[in-house]
Amino acid sequence: MPDLPRVGFLGLGIMGRPMAHNLLRAGYPLVVYNRSPAPVAELVAAGAESAPTPAATGAGCDLAITMLANDAAVEAVVLGPDGLAAGLRRGAVHVDMSTISPLTARRIAAHLAERGVEALDAPVSGGEVGARDATLSIMVGGPAATLERARPPLERLGRSIVHIGAAGAGQVAKACNQLVVGVTIDAVAEALLLASAAGVDPARVREALLGGFASSRVLDLHGQRMLDHAFQPGFMASMQLKDLNIVVALGEAAGVPLPGATTVRDLYEALVARGDGRLDHSGLLTLLEGRAGRPLQRPAVAD
Amino acid sequence: MPDLPRVGFLGLGIMGRPMAHNLLRAGYPLVVYNRSPAPVAELVAAGAESAPTPAATGAGCDLAITMLANDAAVEAVVLGPDGLAAGLRRGAVHVDMSTISPLTARRIAAHLAERGVEALDAPVSGGEVGARDATLSIMVGGPAATLERARPPLERLGRSIVHIGAAGAGQVAKACNQLVVGVTIDAVAEALLLASAAGVDPARVREALLGGFASSRVLDLHGQRMLDHAFQPGFMASMQLKDLNIVVALGEAAGVPLPGATTVRDLYEALVARGDGRLDHSGLLTLLEGRAGRPLQRPAVAD
Repeated sequence: MPDLPRVGFLGLGIMGRPMAHNLLRAGYPLVVYNRSPAPVAELVAAGAESAPTPAATGAGCDLAITMLANDAAVEAVVLGPDGLAAGLRRGAVHVDMSTISPLTARRIAAHLAERGVEALDAPVSGGEVGARDATLSIMVGGPAATLERARPPLERLGRSIVHIGAAGAGQVAKACNQLVVGVTIDAVAEALLLASAAGVDPARVREALLGGFASSRVLDLHGQRMLDHAFQPGFMASMQLKDLNIVVALGEAAGVPLPGATTVRDLYEALVARGDGRLDHSGLLTLLEGRAGRPLQRPAVAD
Repeated sequence: MPDLPRVGFLGLGIMGRPMAHNLLRAGYPLVVYNRSPAPVAELVAAGAESAPTPAATGAGCDLAITMLANDAAVEAVVLGPDGLAAGLRRGAVHVDMSTISPLTARRIAAHLAERGVEALDAPVSGGEVGARDATLSIMVGGPAATLERARPPLERLGRSIVHIGAAGAGQVAKACNQLVVGVTIDAVAEALLLASAAGVDPARVREALLGGFASSRVLDLHGQRMLDHAFQPGFMASMQLKDLNIVVALGEAAGVPLPGATTVRDLYEALVARGDGRLDHSGLLTLLEGRAGRPLQRPAVAD
């Protein structure tokens, strides 16, 4: 086997942990860092090294990947005291696979550039299953040459790697993705609940709509979850809200009115405010059910 | 060839005309009616009979199909003076393939039942191309036994025939379809315009999103129309508005709040009010472009 470059991996949560395992399995010498110790012990048992700080994790690595919860976590881990930026050598590559604001992503890339570190923003879609099966869809912002350097390990994490554009462009694409997913979930929830309230079997409506222009992966997968009231995540409503807040802020910064996205952001805000942030994002249906005063249901007697 | 039943066809517009031709081509003895004479002459030249009133069209027919613009047109043609209801014999079948309110559809079915006429609401999706190629998706409300009587001619018009439920259920499914299509068009328009305004190539965003949970036929087909600014219809924005008004009214009648559908209905209302009702419904993008003060565009220089 050729010598593979040493990789740092910071953030061993629901997504990061299986991704780090995939890199280990592919033979990459791996140094891991995580705030809570349990997943670190698990990765070390599987063959990784661990480091006490982000800076120490980056030292001696050719490439470091972060997979963290939000803007604040990425800023703290990369730019904070003992941060990754302080440890990475000139010429190393930082790949942030978290979903954060494009504006934050650009700021971090600029900071790293001052230190001679190359940066990519590379958020993913595909969820926990995609992380485990290495079938993530990866949307990349940053210099094309930097992506070519990072591509071999990224190919161990995802099936589709699309170079969207310059720094921040990956996060812009992810924001667009979350806008479309969130608004489409709302559309499907409204349609199925409307069918049910009008006395029509929502399962037959879903089936009929899958054959035409209304067809989507959301109608297929999340529509079925709604029919089954199966709202264990999946992707949590609180994360969908975080992402729609990024979308709305980006719209304000770019001067683009987003009436649909804003309406649906407000719905997720209400869902999370009433304590249902841990439901799958398709659980937005339950908010509409509450407002309608009736659940989604199939008719007792078939026609 | 076995004797095929005599069919009445009322409404020879963009959709009805090619549908009537398909029935003629399949060998059905056809009697046609239309308010303006030109398409009547065309169908007569192709072998149809014509009749001077809806009542006369229905007389002697086993089955009559209406394909009209809106609720008022269907009510006038079916229930008005010299209307279809007055001409159809007991035991005949009326199939309304127009897109109208489920409430109107149920009212018409009840009127016809009093006269011993069986009724189906059978709105379609698939547009002009589907009408011409007989690949429409047909959503049917009404008694299952009535659908079985009407199925042979319907199979000459569409590829998929789904029995949704009792009278009005086909229109409920169509309303749900138009809700999802309209709201998804808005989501795609917002996302692509946001990408563009943030300096990112919307074509690459569309491509990346087609690989994940945001994927839909709207993103594929209408997203490409938006990138090309190709807004010749297709399906007119004014018709999308008509259908979203049906959706919102149905939501009010059923006590279901529809925040997403209402937001998008208001956008189509603004689009039509400024004189753009004849654009394809994907032309909703142009309303958002106007509000943002900038067009959707691909970056001048690739990254």
